[in-house]
Amino acid sequence: MSFDMATAFRPGLPEPAVPWQDPPDFAFVGGNNDADSVPFGGLAEAAVNALKREGRALATYNLGGSPLGYLPLRRFVCDALGVRADTTVQPDEVLITSGSLQALDLVNQALLAPGDTVLIEQATYGGMVSRLQRLGVSYVGIELDEHGIDVAHLASVLDELAAAGRTPKYLYTIPTVQNPTGSVLPVERRLEVLALARRHGVPIFEDDCYADLVWDGTRPPTIRSLDDGGGQVIYCGSFSKSIAPALRVGYIVADQSVVLQLMALKSDAGTGALEQLTLAEFAPSHFDQHVERLIAALKRKCDRMVEAVGREFGAEVTVTPPKGGIYVWLTFPDGVDTDALAPAAAEAGIQFNPGSGWSADPAWGRRRLRLCFGDAEESSIDRGVAELARVYRESGQADQPGG
Amino acid sequence: MSFDMATAFRPGLPEPAVPWQDPPDFAFVGGNNDADSVPFGGLAEAAVNALKREGRALATYNLGGSPLGYLPLRRFVCDALGVRADTTVQPDEVLITSGSLQALDLVNQALLAPGDTVLIEQATYGGMVSRLQRLGVSYVGIELDEHGIDVAHLASVLDELAAAGRTPKYLYTIPTVQNPTGSVLPVERRLEVLALARRHGVPIFEDDCYADLVWDGTRPPTIRSLDDGGGQVIYCGSFSKSIAPALRVGYIVADQSVVLQLMALKSDAGTGALEQLTLAEFAPSHFDQHVERLIAALKRKCDRMVEAVGREFGAEVTVTPPKGGIYVWLTFPDGVDTDALAPAAAEAGIQFNPGSGWSADPAWGRRRLRLCFGDAEESSIDRGVAELARVYRESGQADQPGG
Repeated sequence: MSFDMATAFRPGLPEPAVPWQDPPDFAFVGGNNDADSVPFGGLAEAAVNALKREGRALATYNLGGSPLGYLPLRRFVCDALGVRADTTVQPDEVLITSGSLQALDLVNQALLAPGDTVLIEQATYGGMVSRLQRLGVSYVGIELDEHGIDVAHLASVLDELAAAGRTPKYLYTIPTVQNPTGSVLPVERRLEVLALARRHGVPIFEDDCYADLVWDGTRPPTIRSLDDGGGQVIYCGSFSKSIAPALRVGYIVADQSVVLQLMALKSDAGTGALEQLTLAEFAPSHFDQHVERLIAALKRKCDRMVEAVGREFGAEVTVTPPKGGIYVWLTFPDGVDTDALAPAAAEAGIQFNPGSGWSADPAWGRRRLRLCFGDAEESSIDRGVAELARVYRESGQADQPGG
Repeated sequence: MSFDMATAFRPGLPEPAVPWQDPPDFAFVGGNNDADSVPFGGLAEAAVNALKREGRALATYNLGGSPLGYLPLRRFVCDALGVRADTTVQPDEVLITSGSLQALDLVNQALLAPGDTVLIEQATYGGMVSRLQRLGVSYVGIELDEHGIDVAHLASVLDELAAAGRTPKYLYTIPTVQNPTGSVLPVERRLEVLALARRHGVPIFEDDCYADLVWDGTRPPTIRSLDDGGGQVIYCGSFSKSIAPALRVGYIVADQSVVLQLMALKSDAGTGALEQLTLAEFAPSHFDQHVERLIAALKRKCDRMVEAVGREFGAEVTVTPPKGGIYVWLTFPDGVDTDALAPAAAEAGIQFNPGSGWSADPAWGRRRLRLCFGDAEESSIDRGVAELARVYRESGQADQPGG
């Protein structure tokens, strides 16, 4: 008679994970990247050099330094944000995290309690939506257009909440290569968003994970830089998208007092030192060139996917070509339900992110879906999108069967 | 006028961290290790080989495999537990974690709610005590002798709690190289502890972080193995102590259903792949030999510290030589307060862990302290312990000033 550990679990846990299955042929999900672009030779060389020079330091937690993270890596984050995003940062304003998902968890832990309200973008990162649900936090979606946040809508939501006596705990925004729409918020709107946040005393949580992957290589200044010491913005970024997602290295940038509060919540005794050492060795001399090549590879895949969607779905589906990144966002006609499409697609070996899970309002998202192309072979993009179009037509949901 | 983010923090956060300061001369704290023993050359070679073979896989989360962790590393964990601790484990019963601290957090998240009660060892890992406090969980300390858990005391505590209608959510034990006492629980007691846990329906959370560092190289079977499929035990281990603490790779071993529940709580999208790849490449051919050498180096330091404590403190302080690990546990005469000793020691450049923070009952721990020797130079051990004895005598707390 064996003991049933489930009887000891606390109530309200998320569903257990399901045992791993290899992905299907057309796995257009997940923030994966282009395998041909992984700079593994350069990373190997960097790992060797760093280990030979500083390997003894592995004997102490955090390489014997600050739990904020390996100082040369924090310095690189500062330098890169300066050069690439016009943002002045000091190393003691940087907390290296175990991927940017840990950044989300730490910021949420510091700011959110059940019953709180936050603002998110109408379409946003599904992992944030599920986190908020699990935390018992309410969220209001801010409308987006092809450039990102609709400032007038943000203003009216803030006014409504203020009238009801509620101050949102933060505005979560992905201004540069918005996930999932791929827009880049122009600097004028960034200033307007910031002005509204200031007026209402609402922190901005700026998630810039994909910001290095803008096609034309230029990023607007971060909202954090526009705040110019105003204390309004907690910023996070990642090496997952620019180098490799299986490395788990991200970062939070915030005022030092905020960073020290978040550090007190970081209970993992530091982020993996080998990954930090390797990135700190690799990045200063290779990052820019690597990212330029990566962007070119991703842009080819993106074009291929946008083309395939146009070819296979015709005018029935809207896809605004993204400004960068690894995904496209498809909008179907009114009445289409992409949740209902998913099982038939799965049978045909296709995975996509139904829009309901990537939206503040699932009903709004239901006729939308996200397709990731980062790790897809170019020929699978063509075949997978063709298959998806076939599944869609055969689902009976299409306006123009056969069209 | 800048925004004060602290006004947005939720109530009840832990104190912010303090800005990093370099450690003093005699930092006898922290689970650090012997710098001369870090196998950085072997790790560098392993990193290169692994990256050249599988570097492309970094483009996908979890190297394109299960979020449980890199399969060859999970296989090594199984093999090593089989050979070293007579424990049969399948790879789908292993969840690789970002250090064993994440293992503690995941198990706590799955099992504990505010108001719960758990059993811990009378003297135990301070990081677990602080976690339980933060979670609002009560804990009862089980008495220890030189071999570990006092089974009779465990039985009486379980009976008392049962009489009060309370079932502890788990018994947290560090049976092999107990932290901080350095004892190793004999197999007979393991069986008795297990029998009691079964009778009372109490899960055992077995933390075997230091178990590879037993001086004589032999470990008793794990409690998990003695449970023999009984479902009673969640086990965790780590490469922090056997390889290097700045690497953040630990593991949970539990029944598959439990592992899948814990995996659903692991919100970091996987543990760093470069560290997993490197360890999986290094360990199969190098682990045993490396650990043998590491143990020899640590044993020398341990002997040196035990000797220094005897020489400097005399009979006034009891120190039972540990059976392995990186720390010794000192017991002072009744009435001594090691919390009060800490500031003066700090002024003399000495850090130690006051026993109050490493004890279920701070009052019981107050005349005790932990000294870590893993990363100390042998000569600093002599000088640091001599300095600590001087501080103690000058504190006015010594029974025999000058003795």
